[in-house]
Amino acid sequence: MDHFEYRDGQLYCEGVSADRIVQEVGTPVYVYSKATLLHHFGQIVEAFAPLDATVCYAVKTNGNLHICRVLAEAGAGFDVVSGGEIHRALAAGGDPARIVFAGVGKSDREIAEAIEAGVGLFNVESEPELENIDRIAGRMGRPARGALRVNPDVDPRTHTYITTGKKETKFGVDIERAMAIFRAHARRLGNRAAAPDRPGLHLRGIHLHIGSQITTVQPYVDATAKTLALIDGLRGEGFAIDSLDLGGGFGINYQAEEALPASAFAEALVPMLRGRGLRITLEPGRFIAGNAGVMLTQVQYVKSGGDRRFVIVDAAMNDLIRPMLYGAFHFIWPTRVKASFVPPAVRTEAANLPGLSAVDVVGPICESGDFFAKDRPLPPVARGDRLAIFSAGAYGFAMASQYNARPRPPEVLVDGEGYRIIRRRESYDDLIAHERD
Amino acid sequence: MDHFEYRDGQLYCEGVSADRIVQEVGTPVYVYSKATLLHHFGQIVEAFAPLDATVCYAVKTNGNLHICRVLAEAGAGFDVVSGGEIHRALAAGGDPARIVFAGVGKSDREIAEAIEAGVGLFNVESEPELENIDRIAGRMGRPARGALRVNPDVDPRTHTYITTGKKETKFGVDIERAMAIFRAHARRLGNRAAAPDRPGLHLRGIHLHIGSQITTVQPYVDATAKTLALIDGLRGEGFAIDSLDLGGGFGINYQAEEALPASAFAEALVPMLRGRGLRITLEPGRFIAGNAGVMLTQVQYVKSGGDRRFVIVDAAMNDLIRPMLYGAFHFIWPTRVKASFVPPAVRTEAANLPGLSAVDVVGPICESGDFFAKDRPLPPVARGDRLAIFSAGAYGFAMASQYNARPRPPEVLVDGEGYRIIRRRESYDDLIAHERD
Repeated sequence: MDHFEYRDGQLYCEGVSADRIVQEVGTPVYVYSKATLLHHFGQIVEAFAPLDATVCYAVKTNGNLHICRVLAEAGAGFDVVSGGEIHRALAAGGDPARIVFAGVGKSDREIAEAIEAGVGLFNVESEPELENIDRIAGRMGRPARGALRVNPDVDPRTHTYITTGKKETKFGVDIERAMAIFRAHARRLGNRAAAPDRPGLHLRGIHLHIGSQITTVQPYVDATAKTLALIDGLRGEGFAIDSLDLGGGFGINYQAEEALPASAFAEALVPMLRGRGLRITLEPGRFIAGNAGVMLTQVQYVKSGGDRRFVIVDAAMNDLIRPMLYGAFHFIWPTRVKASFVPPAVRTEAANLPGLSAVDVVGPICESGDFFAKDRPLPPVARGDRLAIFSAGAYGFAMASQYNARPRPPEVLVDGEGYRIIRRRESYDDLIAHERD
Repeated sequence: MDHFEYRDGQLYCEGVSADRIVQEVGTPVYVYSKATLLHHFGQIVEAFAPLDATVCYAVKTNGNLHICRVLAEAGAGFDVVSGGEIHRALAAGGDPARIVFAGVGKSDREIAEAIEAGVGLFNVESEPELENIDRIAGRMGRPARGALRVNPDVDPRTHTYITTGKKETKFGVDIERAMAIFRAHARRLGNRAAAPDRPGLHLRGIHLHIGSQITTVQPYVDATAKTLALIDGLRGEGFAIDSLDLGGGFGINYQAEEALPASAFAEALVPMLRGRGLRITLEPGRFIAGNAGVMLTQVQYVKSGGDRRFVIVDAAMNDLIRPMLYGAFHFIWPTRVKASFVPPAVRTEAANLPGLSAVDVVGPICESGDFFAKDRPLPPVARGDRLAIFSAGAYGFAMASQYNARPRPPEVLVDGEGYRIIRRRESYDDLIAHERD
């Protein structure tokens, strides 16, 4: 569910028409809906309320300061993976105690910055990292809380590049090795000690993250069951385990109604986790931001080459790389259509409307991979028409580059009948500002 | 051939050790060799000297202002694909008359900027674009020279994403349609007129670009033969054709000695093109910059997970996306090794040295796709060691993003015994500077 809809043949984001934004801000442009962000965030908070779970927004999906601020004000914590993301979360007013810091390659500088800022939890991805955090926290005379990331070896059935919770990845440690790691390290790390202010790492939690864009409950149930068995075992040996971070990965609808509501995950997980004496953390990102954003672009040329018809737009792979990088599907539709072309409520490739014809929607970059859709049925479009590329709120601008010396697009946040530019369009001079003598 | 070599077990770029740059500038960092840039540029100029060819450096490969300036001073023209690249070429001191402007989605603004700047040649990719350039140039009261990009439909046998000269792509027009396009448009566009100052587009050239990273001569020979037949046909109908832009695509050695020297292409092409009354343009990019750059990175953690060993470095897919995006091979080696581990002159994955062991070299980003090498035999490496990722001068920094809120790395240009920082490292504040209220 989101707040992008057609009224009288025109696309609106909440109370603002896409065309108004295009006229005032130009194309390409990312447009986000505040109500949609809050709706999705609230859905998760509500579903997991029986656990009093901390919902940490995954900054990597869309780290714009103003997006983070909207969520911080709604009570979100933040899941960060770099010093830059800590900087973003803090600049947005995030509470450091509700920041969890994950990532397999935390640098000494980043670890020190996180400790200095008072970040609530380190998700620890390896034994060398565990020792490094302990060393740096010890040197700084500060305590740091840690959760060991374990790989429960369940298959989330998603894209290879976003599968992270299986064995043989760079992330976390095999769940079978977790007990041995606690035995080897946790006593020294003061896990059983009643001295919470002892400088160094306190390893008292477990972290899971099984993947991304997951649309079934079972992988979570399987992973949670395995992890609870581990926690029981650890507690049986006298280790204090007070927290469990379940990660993120809840899928969204890119097309069709394949995704589940947050309540479906909660219904399965809450009974398993209730009364366990565990502080529960969740790290949704795409679930909150994915369908809260579209990218608007303008048709530059319509061109026939051989048997194919190319709709060349002014956005490109540098603005949104997901179709090229992951083969991702994004629903695309003109922002202004006649009544017979109002798209179906379920945005799907196979929109069953008479009069559509198949086109390739491509960008201006000099690579064959610079495309948004291939052989996609669309209403007739002409030079100057605008298209909306849906479900672009997550991993859209966040992955944007300046390839082909293309200034990155602006970002706009709609709130009811108004909107603001929350990141300005880059200029040619911005491209070279750091190269000046 | 390039100016990166090991001396006494240490990697040097020309006269500067990699370790010196790392100590002074940090990691990750891109390091370029001026001598290598000039060597490769000179090789092409020399090989094609009998044609007095204009060698236009493809800015998209590595558009750093100082790289462009080195080449401009050596006499290069520039192949650009966007307004931003025109801006870069001009800021670097490029001669507008030696700029060729390609790209399938040139916007009205970009076309006007190019005309205003006096760009020498438009490579025209479609009929709608042809009309658009003519309209804008006419309105501005200025002449503009154009070359029609034709697809000769030869298979360059390279990666699908960088194949551009076949039928059914978004680029150019099928060679069979070129004659019809000249018949339909060129008279009106003043092709036969002896009025070079007439406002509007003057279509008097042909442009080819068959692909990228091509390591055989035959595709060029086939494409050139087809194009010369077209030019003969056009001239036979009275059209004036005065220029032929052969594009780029000359491959380089990523591993093994698969690439050809510029002279190999020239030996086949010069006899075909000599005395034809055509101004010849070439658009090399990767050939000049690819092996003129490395990225240096530091090992953060060495980690065993299941059967695999992961070397986690401080560079990531946001800094260099080619392995993830194209499955590209980049040779990787420590910057400092004992004598028995000095790498072979031909940098190849199958380095036949005793004592290597296979590792995955991965970055800190939270995606399984964030890797530089999988199962790659390397000398033993430990936390704190530095690795060089070779052949990173083209499509390296140019495609960098700030994904995971990672500030982009600095770029350094070595010249003999010294070096300068030609782009500074980004700061956390740079990430959010355009998002401030």
